[in-house]
Amino acid sequence: MTITDPQVASPRGSTGLPPEEPRFASDLPTPEQLAARYEEVRATTEALSAPLNPEDQVVQSMPDVSPTKWHRAHTTWFFETFVLAPYEPGFRPVHPSYDYLFNSYYEQVGPRHPRHERGLLSRPTVAEVGAYRATVDHTMGSFLAGSARERWDEVAPIIEIGLHHEQQHQELLLVDIKHVLSRNPLCPSYQVRVPAGPASSSWSPAGPVRWCEVEGGVAELGHAGRGFAWDNEGPRHRVFLDDFAVADRLVTCGEWEAFIRDGGYTRPELWLSEGWAMVQQEGWEAPLYWERDGHGWALFTLHGRQPLVTDEPVVHVSFLEADAYARWSGFRLPTEAEWEVAATRVAAGEPPNDLSTGALHPRAAPPVAGERDGVRQLAGDVWEWTASAYRPYPGFRNPPGAVGEYNGKFMCSQMVLRGGACVTPAAHVRPTYRNFFPPSARWAAAGLRLAADPA
Amino acid sequence: MTITDPQVASPRGSTGLPPEEPRFASDLPTPEQLAARYEEVRATTEALSAPLNPEDQVVQSMPDVSPTKWHRAHTTWFFETFVLAPYEPGFRPVHPSYDYLFNSYYEQVGPRHPRHERGLLSRPTVAEVGAYRATVDHTMGSFLAGSARERWDEVAPIIEIGLHHEQQHQELLLVDIKHVLSRNPLCPSYQVRVPAGPASSSWSPAGPVRWCEVEGGVAELGHAGRGFAWDNEGPRHRVFLDDFAVADRLVTCGEWEAFIRDGGYTRPELWLSEGWAMVQQEGWEAPLYWERDGHGWALFTLHGRQPLVTDEPVVHVSFLEADAYARWSGFRLPTEAEWEVAATRVAAGEPPNDLSTGALHPRAAPPVAGERDGVRQLAGDVWEWTASAYRPYPGFRNPPGAVGEYNGKFMCSQMVLRGGACVTPAAHVRPTYRNFFPPSARWAAAGLRLAADPA
Amino acid sequence: MTITDPQVASPRGSTGLPPEEPRFASDLPTPEQLAARYEEVRATTEALSAPLNPEDQVVQSMPDVSPTKWHRAHTTWFFETFVLAPYEPGFRPVHPSYDYLFNSYYEQVGPRHPRHERGLLSRPTVAEVGAYRATVDHTMGSFLAGSARERWDEVAPIIEIGLHHEQQHQELLLVDIKHVLSRNPLCPSYQVRVPAGPASSSWSPAGPVRWCEVEGGVAELGHAGRGFAWDNEGPRHRVFLDDFAVADRLVTCGEWEAFIRDGGYTRPELWLSEGWAMVQQEGWEAPLYWERDGHGWALFTLHGRQPLVTDEPVVHVSFLEADAYARWSGFRLPTEAEWEVAATRVAAGEPPNDLSTGALHPRAAPPVAGERDGVRQLAGDVWEWTASAYRPYPGFRNPPGAVGEYNGKFMCSQMVLRGGACVTPAAHVRPTYRNFFPPSARWAAAGLRLAADPA
Amino acid sequence: MTITDPQVASPRGSTGLPPEEPRFASDLPTPEQLAARYEEVRATTEALSAPLNPEDQVVQSMPDVSPTKWHRAHTTWFFETFVLAPYEPGFRPVHPSYDYLFNSYYEQVGPRHPRHERGLLSRPTVAEVGAYRATVDHTMGSFLAGSARERWDEVAPIIEIGLHHEQQHQELLLVDIKHVLSRNPLCPSYQVRVPAGPASSSWSPAGPVRWCEVEGGVAELGHAGRGFAWDNEGPRHRVFLDDFAVADRLVTCGEWEAFIRDGGYTRPELWLSEGWAMVQQEGWEAPLYWERDGHGWALFTLHGRQPLVTDEPVVHVSFLEADAYARWSGFRLPTEAEWEVAATRVAAGEPPNDLSTGALHPRAAPPVAGERDGVRQLAGDVWEWTASAYRPYPGFRNPPGAVGEYNGKFMCSQMVLRGGACVTPAAHVRPTYRNFFPPSARWAAAGLRLAADPA
Repeated sequence: MTITDPQVASPRGSTGLPPEEPRFASDLPTPEQLAARYEEVRATTEALSAPLNPEDQVVQSMPDVSPTKWHRAHTTWFFETFVLAPYEPGFRPVHPSYDYLFNSYYEQVGPRHPRHERGLLSRPTVAEVGAYRATVDHTMGSFLAGSARERWDEVAPIIEIGLHHEQQHQELLLVDIKHVLSRNPLCPSYQVRVPAGPASSSWSPAGPVRWCEVEGGVAELGHAGRGFAWDNEGPRHRVFLDDFAVADRLVTCGEWEAFIRDGGYTRPELWLSEGWAMVQQEGWEAPLYWERDGHGWALFTLHGRQPLVTDEPVVHVSFLEADAYARWSGFRLPTEAEWEVAATRVAAGEPPNDLSTGALHPRAAPPVAGERDGVRQLAGDVWEWTASAYRPYPGFRNPPGAVGEYNGKFMCSQMVLRGGACVTPAAHVRPTYRNFFPPSARWAAAGLRLAADPA
Repeated sequence: MTITDPQVASPRGSTGLPPEEPRFASDLPTPEQLAARYEEVRATTEALSAPLNPEDQVVQSMPDVSPTKWHRAHTTWFFETFVLAPYEPGFRPVHPSYDYLFNSYYEQVGPRHPRHERGLLSRPTVAEVGAYRATVDHTMGSFLAGSARERWDEVAPIIEIGLHHEQQHQELLLVDIKHVLSRNPLCPSYQVRVPAGPASSSWSPAGPVRWCEVEGGVAELGHAGRGFAWDNEGPRHRVFLDDFAVADRLVTCGEWEAFIRDGGYTRPELWLSEGWAMVQQEGWEAPLYWERDGHGWALFTLHGRQPLVTDEPVVHVSFLEADAYARWSGFRLPTEAEWEVAATRVAAGEPPNDLSTGALHPRAAPPVAGERDGVRQLAGDVWEWTASAYRPYPGFRNPPGAVGEYNGKFMCSQMVLRGGACVTPAAHVRPTYRNFFPPSARWAAAGLRLAADPA
Repeated sequence: MTITDPQVASPRGSTGLPPEEPRFASDLPTPEQLAARYEEVRATTEALSAPLNPEDQVVQSMPDVSPTKWHRAHTTWFFETFVLAPYEPGFRPVHPSYDYLFNSYYEQVGPRHPRHERGLLSRPTVAEVGAYRATVDHTMGSFLAGSARERWDEVAPIIEIGLHHEQQHQELLLVDIKHVLSRNPLCPSYQVRVPAGPASSSWSPAGPVRWCEVEGGVAELGHAGRGFAWDNEGPRHRVFLDDFAVADRLVTCGEWEAFIRDGGYTRPELWLSEGWAMVQQEGWEAPLYWERDGHGWALFTLHGRQPLVTDEPVVHVSFLEADAYARWSGFRLPTEAEWEVAATRVAAGEPPNDLSTGALHPRAAPPVAGERDGVRQLAGDVWEWTASAYRPYPGFRNPPGAVGEYNGKFMCSQMVLRGGACVTPAAHVRPTYRNFFPPSARWAAAGLRLAADPA
Repeated sequence: MTITDPQVASPRGSTGLPPEEPRFASDLPTPEQLAARYEEVRATTEALSAPLNPEDQVVQSMPDVSPTKWHRAHTTWFFETFVLAPYEPGFRPVHPSYDYLFNSYYEQVGPRHPRHERGLLSRPTVAEVGAYRATVDHTMGSFLAGSARERWDEVAPIIEIGLHHEQQHQELLLVDIKHVLSRNPLCPSYQVRVPAGPASSSWSPAGPVRWCEVEGGVAELGHAGRGFAWDNEGPRHRVFLDDFAVADRLVTCGEWEAFIRDGGYTRPELWLSEGWAMVQQEGWEAPLYWERDGHGWALFTLHGRQPLVTDEPVVHVSFLEADAYARWSGFRLPTEAEWEVAATRVAAGEPPNDLSTGALHPRAAPPVAGERDGVRQLAGDVWEWTASAYRPYPGFRNPPGAVGEYNGKFMCSQMVLRGGACVTPAAHVRPTYRNFFPPSARWAAAGLRLAADPA
């Protein structure tokens, strides 16, 4: 039994945590490798913005949404602030105000423009933001070819974070512009629908759910490999699980229609108290972007308004709705531990419908190949709400400095989602990845899968 | 692998769950025993209201708070609605509007008066509420002596719930009236301070924290005995825990002062994002009820304004503050599993400072008896914020019917607290009891204890 | 042409206006007269509170409403603050906090308890407020018999203001408690209905409106006599009026029903923009306190819920509703100048239904006596919305000191009402009296009379 | 005495007013004249938009502000809706949704896009709005050359209204974009400052105010000529005025600085109650767009941030501030009747600083020419707050139909401003013009002039 008095001891919290070892030093990419990845990621952001005209890139349709040009500038600011400013000798910021305008939430970096006022900024213009990106890209190119190499062990991990950070914003850019366009009575499309490939068109209907049973016991959870992972995916640790079963596909739009027809949005006994309050306050009667269309439903998508497809996974539901649906169905949501174990042990492993497919919309589950087939749609399509609140893993500590604000400070009042969506860059689709949103959020590309307790 | 199609199967959620067996049938008290407990619990509520004049019993100082007379009427309505109405032949409610006025949140019972408007009701008067209680008590007396015995297996568990429900409202009555009185510039006392007993007065200062180490592994959690427990305390289940250490006493006011002096409320890096937003929005700079008093602090208590006592446990802090304090201290909050294991294995077992002591305020920890002494203050004094979000235990299902709305529907966006407080009836202080509040709530009698990971 | 430079001259605004002569020095009552009036006014307030129990006197049902005990205390504070404190040697306030608690809006007196939190105060209790009143009355008695006489010219006008102030609060006490009781699903009565006198019961139905034509030209407006008047009733001044006609009675409930049946609350073209916004935002579909009762309407009154009486004047409508009704009817509201000229020249002069009748509700117009009969219901029954915004008369200046905050600072965004209501003390019913409320206020006892332009 | 029963008579309000004669039939321009004016007005709007890039034209910085492209589209919609739709045979609207998107507030035209969501619309793009304008202009050209001539008496007045309407929006476009740009930390300019002309640069300092006395009596007010006027400028009518004096120039920035230095924003006794509430709630401590700049002040203008110029008229103050300033100065604001009489009788008549000068900012008063010089700055520079609430003139009736919603429905809770501003088209600067804004509005180009009562 050790004795410490927090009143007299020098608390670690107040003096700052000791710097830790670079977490993945042995895995460092070479400067050439990272330069190539930098170019690719940055070019992807520009390609995703390309279908949008300047007006589209200005609008903020609600506080959670950021304008497209803000995403493009903020991800650039990240490299200026966390890479060039500390490591590039003689660095001069492109513009003295961009630090104020394009800081998202890093309290330790300084004051910042209020989040809900991002849509008030017509300047810098879209062209100026483009120039900002080009300038920083040019400087980053020189940096990677030059002084970066002197402190590569320090610099490379931050650039990696910057690239993963930008990829997260690629997804946000898409779900945000979807929300922006959806608020326009003209129903504009982000892009013309990509024709589905042959595999998809030959798929049979979703078919009945098959339950995949998984044996319980003590399991290990969290990131363990040498690849990149966010701090919140660790430390790897043990949990105890009972036996459980998980549905072999996502809940579909057709099933959600049955929930609606059965009074799902009108029966308080199905809902968490917070959920029922939202139903009444916000007038929820279907997922976000569903609109009644004669006798059926239409969905607003990145391809404009489209008729509902019964076998496609439902998307743009909140945790509160997912939870009510699960209660209605007689089953439940999986915990994040169950989800991760299932994804590790019993995944069917079909090619994921992530950002790389270009579909930008979830697809019906592929047909079952045989009796022994595994769990489908674990990667891509929609983020899957789990039953788990977003809290730190045992032993988790915020990393020191501003980058430590990345994940840890949001570990309250949010729920974990797993699996990645059709708008998620492929590098962000892995079994240990922990996404998180407040229980009432609906503009994220989130759906659900059911779990059950074996009889 | 079983196959079920939620679209065609009759889901349990939509047809209603099958009635379960009474949970504690073998433990049923006799009618005489329950009648005696009924009298005692009901009399306690009246005794707690006695120091208040009619004006005090009307005010609602914020939406979370209910007027005293509402608590007194609502607990009475519970017996009318869930016991007398279904089981007493020929039952006539005391007043046709009371069902509307005194339903708290049972959606399945019918429409109800809006919660935030409880303070608008001058009628029924305090005297009329008193008469309402007396009438229902009289009817309950006849019922317990008569027709209740015919369906005792069904009736007794509901009366037990009603009594525990009323005891929960005894605590709420006290924390609510404290908030009401605190908003009055005249600083009225609820009661004159009860002199501390000899044990207390001879206690030494809080002294340094001692860390009690607990060995990890697979542990069992949740209620298992034959006594009464809420549905949310079960099912009993297994969890895996790493080794951990827990502080042998609560965090004190003196320690909290050090946190304030060290800039605790001004350093965003110590806070969850939601916490820092509250600090700025609400102007938090100390626990609720702390007021600067010259160079030091005074606390508003149920005994009026009192000087801060360094060794007393801090109380009326939110989870967000508790979390920031823990980060500042270099330690962390225990999870609810750790707390329950510690409370079961290493409690010092001193007499708890719960409602039965009449102190109505947390007390400094009793002196340590020896080197082998256990963890103090686990029962009573203050509810202890844990690191755990309030979610259902594995296998938990809401019970059927309106009583099923009691705990389950709040399992979202709240944190678990353990241990009971100085205003908690003794019957509600046990190791498996799960209390819960939103992370920003401060008017509950909540404080904290630290935990640590062994080196 | 005179030349003044406000930059260099000593502006009157910044140095304070010079003290003016007492305005009605020649009319000063004797100390004995004023003592008698003091007793009478103070006793009336207590009599109006008598039907209420302590709980009723605590509640604040909306920010515009004050609790009964607050009215009783605030009017007492007025005498302490503006009479005893400055003029009674050795004066000690009854309680050091009452100055903070019971100041209504006098910025120059000091900080004060927030208006919208008056309902949070259970203390001082109703009994303590009663004792406060008794103590101040006792002190005022001694003061009037003693030291008041030394500076009678200064003191008497302030006491007069204090008494008229208290009478205004008598009316507020009644309309406020009506609102409080109306929010209670139990529909409590303030008092049992006073039986209508013989004159009333023999009255014929309202009958058609008769139009009284008044010749225009330059008219004089404003208070001129020696009796008490508020500062806002002067200075007396000239206005030019065209010929006009005024209805010889108030608009009735029956007429308002016709307006509702004709879609009055559903046709935007009848409404001012601000009015239509309120209709939609607040869901107005009838006057305040009207509730559908089967096929007809019931009204919540100070005598509980009562069936609508067709010939009674409509009451509890906002200016916005009155304006819409007038537009619907094809006529218009009179200006305050027209109203005052009519009240001076063509009033029928029947006995007014003011507070002294005890009816506490407007009455149907008395029958017309003959062809030459004048305009009825100008005094009492309901305050009449005029077409005039509440602005200062030409030459008006705020009096110096805190009492100057009484009327002048509200001369913006309000409309003028004239004539007094059934809850207005008789001393406040006179042709020059200018009452005022925001255009959307409905809890005041306000109705309307139509005017027209001659063909 | 005439008798009418509004219950049985066919009320004019409910059946619609009879159509009136075209008000200015004898003054009708020829189709060629009106076509030329149409081209000019429409081209001016485009010229005012030209300095703005697409991003600038999208943003709505507060509910009162509309995006530039919305102004451009809405003014075009006006011609489609009120001219082409009813009068052009075979008319097809350019886009089926524009009627919904670009209706401002005409309830009788149908449902419309919510005002506060205008900034959510990225589409139609700026280019599409330009094309919309071009198409409607083309159609209007054909119409004016063709079918318009058949019903010219009906059509011409509506086109005139449409052009004056568009000119009002030219001013709004400028004050709105000023607000938009002001919310951007980059402080962008709308245009580079136009160099002041030689007359201006040689002007002497503002100099002391000279008071111009005007004799009272019965005066005539309101529009009487044959030129265009809004409905709210009539009917012409008589008012009675006392003698008064009016300052011969506007209040300057230097004088406002003195007000600030003398505690103007910290002394409640200077303010209307509504004004003091705004000071505290909004933190007002200077006019809108004033920012402290070292020891002095800078102003955000359409030319970017500029140092304060002492002799320039103060602009962007609310009525509440103007009223407080006047009280502080010891003088008062003129009524709108006084202002109009002064503008008619004693104006100096110097060339006005309206939109045609291109200055886009108020200028210091021109030097006084001699002892007999008149009142300067009555036309242009800044709208002048008057002491008058915006209410209908005697005999005013809303015109029938949707155009009747133009002015009348806003005659409540607003104050009258007179004289036009530096951003006002010249055609809108005339002595009878009644502008109006709520008392707390600050984004309009409003300042003030003092008035006084002769000794």
